[in-house]
Amino acid sequence: MLSNIRIVLINTFHPGNVGAIARAMKNMGLTNLYLVDPNDYPSDEATSRAAGAVDLLENATIVSTLEEAIGDCSLVIGTSARHRTFQLPIMNARECAQTVIPESKEHDVAIVFGRETTGLLNEEIAQCHRQVYIDANDEYPVLNISQAVQIVAYEIWMANQNQTQYDKNVAEYPRKKDMDLFYDHLEETLYGINFIVRNHPGKVLDKLHRFFNRSRPEKQELGILRGVLAAVQREAGLTDANNHPDKKAKSDSDKN
Amino acid sequence: MLSNIRIVLINTFHPGNVGAIARAMKNMGLTNLYLVDPNDYPSDEATSRAAGAVDLLENATIVSTLEEAIGDCSLVIGTSARHRTFQLPIMNARECAQTVIPESKEHDVAIVFGRETTGLLNEEIAQCHRQVYIDANDEYPVLNISQAVQIVAYEIWMANQNQTQYDKNVAEYPRKKDMDLFYDHLEETLYGINFIVRNHPGKVLDKLHRFFNRSRPEKQELGILRGVLAAVQREAGLTDANNHPDKKAKSDSDKN
Repeated sequence: MLSNIRIVLINTFHPGNVGAIARAMKNMGLTNLYLVDPNDYPSDEATSRAAGAVDLLENATIVSTLEEAIGDCSLVIGTSARHRTFQLPIMNARECAQTVIPESKEHDVAIVFGRETTGLLNEEIAQCHRQVYIDANDEYPVLNISQAVQIVAYEIWMANQNQTQYDKNVAEYPRKKDMDLFYDHLEETLYGINFIVRNHPGKVLDKLHRFFNRSRPEKQELGILRGVLAAVQREAGLTDANNHPDKKAKSDSDKN
Repeated sequence: MLSNIRIVLINTFHPGNVGAIARAMKNMGLTNLYLVDPNDYPSDEATSRAAGAVDLLENATIVSTLEEAIGDCSLVIGTSARHRTFQLPIMNARECAQTVIPESKEHDVAIVFGRETTGLLNEEIAQCHRQVYIDANDEYPVLNISQAVQIVAYEIWMANQNQTQYDKNVAEYPRKKDMDLFYDHLEETLYGINFIVRNHPGKVLDKLHRFFNRSRPEKQELGILRGVLAAVQREAGLTDANNHPDKKAKSDSDKN
């Protein structure tokens, strides 16, 4: 079950941190490490700091974009300092673990950590469903990244040991890439009905992304929403009903 | 109160660990660091890893024996791997924190960490009142010392926050009756574009209700969603743009 939980590190700068994180993960039963475009890696320093967890480094998945790291995950959680609000639902590490454990029985879950100095970019957090922060001293709240991973992993381990407390029914959620297809379809439809102007979309699309990411439609609900969009396109004369919207070139929607 | 809790490190070998521990402590509101006969200290590596917690290093108390470090403490807790029993009462880190917080109101408390490779000697554990271990993966349970201090300090911080803080910003949400107007508008639009059949709506409307109620759109988001519905109606020729949908008789939507 813990194998469905992946730790995703974006643009790590110090390879020693990657090694320390591998050890911290293995100490807490996590094995699934994704590295997005790491600096200076592989490295002897990472191997040394990993100690008995070199196997995690050897099996780590190295990709060049965040999208590749989270595309097949149905729950994506971004880490952030406490007071940074992107207006996504935010949990502390303990609440996060209580959410992650039951969901990891059903589908893949990603917990994403940003760069050592600057954390996650807004456009990276925008790809997440939830945020997690670590309770800490307000006067000096920023942990070293390997310490932050250690605490998140520790809380996951603790929640997994006590999991009967958190058992609940988990809905079936779409994968990240299916949500992306929905967003493409939504955008195309909103252009088609002249709700937004191409090249001047303003903030409406961002706000709708944020709303739907926060809302986390279930798989069946997403199917209904896609059906609504297809019906709108059909009624507004935007598309041939037999032409699947995923395959439709965006320029088609300009035709009305 | 947290200033009555001291972290005692015995014979640390890597000065970088001392720096990482200073940072981990300060992140969790602990300030009181004792070093018993540290190797290669002070050191630039310790200062570098301490980041914003250099003040803890500068104020650390350096002594040559464990006795000097714990003499004035009324509760001394030694860290150990889980299965090492010295026939002292043993607690995990969470239980330890719940013991330490109330006691630290009354007297000084020490938490003692042993050497990186060999931990505490039996004669050192014999000077403790209690043992603490960190819950971890049985197949690889030994944490880096700075990670172990981080978790113990984190649990102390969490236990000290005996009330959860709900200081987050609360968004402006629509009133129930505004949500009802949205649902009317949605239903009317879905009939209009023939997504649902009047008198045979099936369960789709119920599912959409459930989705949007769970999602709790904020006031501004609801405005955008209403705008989308109005644009759909306009493009599909369902309504005069000047005719406010709230005031529109439902039978109008049958006209196409």
